[in-house]
Amino acid sequence: MDDWLPSLITKIPQEGYELAIKLARKGSGYTQQSSEIREKLRPQYAENPDSLTLVSQVIAIHFQTVAAANNYWK
Amino acid sequence: MDDWLPSLITKIPQEGYELAIKLARKGSGYTQQSSEIREKLRPQYAENPDSLTLVSQVIAIHFQTVAAANNYWK
Amino acid sequence: MDDWLPSLITKIPQEGYELAIKLARKGSGYTQQSSEIREKLRPQYAENPDSLTLVSQVIAIHFQTVAAANNYWK
Amino acid sequence: MDDWLPSLITKIPQEGYELAIKLARKGSGYTQQSSEIREKLRPQYAENPDSLTLVSQVIAIHFQTVAAANNYWK
Amino acid sequence: MDDWLPSLITKIPQEGYELAIKLARKGSGYTQQSSEIREKLRPQYAENPDSLTLVSQVIAIHFQTVAAANNYWK
Amino acid sequence: MDDWLPSLITKIPQEGYELAIKLARKGSGYTQQSSEIREKLRPQYAENPDSLTLVSQVIAIHFQTVAAANNYWK
Repeated sequence: MDDWLPSLITKIPQEGYELAIKLARKGSGYTQQSSEIREKLRPQYAENPDSLTLVSQVIAIHFQTVAAANNYWK
Repeated sequence: MDDWLPSLITKIPQEGYELAIKLARKGSGYTQQSSEIREKLRPQYAENPDSLTLVSQVIAIHFQTVAAANNYWK
Repeated sequence: MDDWLPSLITKIPQEGYELAIKLARKGSGYTQQSSEIREKLRPQYAENPDSLTLVSQVIAIHFQTVAAANNYWK
Repeated sequence: MDDWLPSLITKIPQEGYELAIKLARKGSGYTQQSSEIREKLRPQYAENPDSLTLVSQVIAIHFQTVAAANNYWK
Repeated sequence: MDDWLPSLITKIPQEGYELAIKLARKGSGYTQQSSEIREKLRPQYAENPDSLTLVSQVIAIHFQTVAAANNYWK
Repeated sequence: MDDWLPSLITKIPQEGYELAIKLARKGSGYTQQSSEIREKLRPQYAENPDSLTLVSQVIAIHFQTVAAANNYWK
């Protein structure tokens, strides 16, 4: 894999949230490395509310990590 | 996306809880960017108890983060 | 919404646990604001063991937050 | 409810684990207050491996709390 | 139950991980105390990928606890 | 099992993320020790979006641990 995670530090909370999204997506990306298959699966979860909530949960866990790394941007 | 997360700091716990709800919803919003589709999906989970519990779980995870950021409003 | 979360501080652990239950329920309450519908859904999960475990999990996550806020009542 | 949670402090880790089990069960108990119904549901999850894993997960979350409260019995 | 959890302290990270596995299994063991039934259920989850992931999740939660108890073996 | 977890310390965040993936996979590996069966199960979850999200969640939990162990690589 390319370098995709140079640091957990971000300037503002919203960038931290977007980094959490990236961290969540990478978890699927390492397991299913074909971006073609991942794109094919997308409609299956992007229109299923429980699937969206599950994705949101993974983002929430990573956002805890990123927020702590940034001392909550205080 | 617009600026939607200027800070994790809130004046009182209840505002912190409402920020946690916003953080939970954004997780779905970034994945399913069509607000039209999200509205269409709403009845599917708003009347399903397990779906509501799942949403509540994501809120709980974000509330941990927001509460820690605010030093538990002590 | 009314004021429902003035503080995370409680006198004893059991009150903290009961606050965690309230925090868990509010997560569903903000998403499904009709108390009539919520009451209608109740039998669906109150007699389903996995649904009860899921609810218990959300309580557990909030109890972590409340316990930390109270420095574990030490 | 009776007093059932006087403290999070236990003498040894195993007692802490057993307290975590109690905390997990209470989460269902507050939601489904009929012990008769809870007993009736028991076979449904006690012989279902995923249900057992879900219960184990709630215990794990509470054990984090109890272990932190006891400074990991160090 | 016998004494099975004398301490959360381990010499190396891998022993800590193996302790996390034990903690995860005990969660099911306290709920389904018949080892005969647990053995009978084993094939149901050991060949189901989502069941394996769920088990792995419980291990992950306990590993957080054990790693913190050991100050991350630093 | 061989020695597979000498340390939680990594040089950079991305190596920490990859260690989290290893920790997540080991959770299944200890439960289903046949690598042949694990390979057979792979297509079942690598093309199922919810399964991928579940795997991503376990990685997220382990990444919290690894990131804390490394003081967030600050």
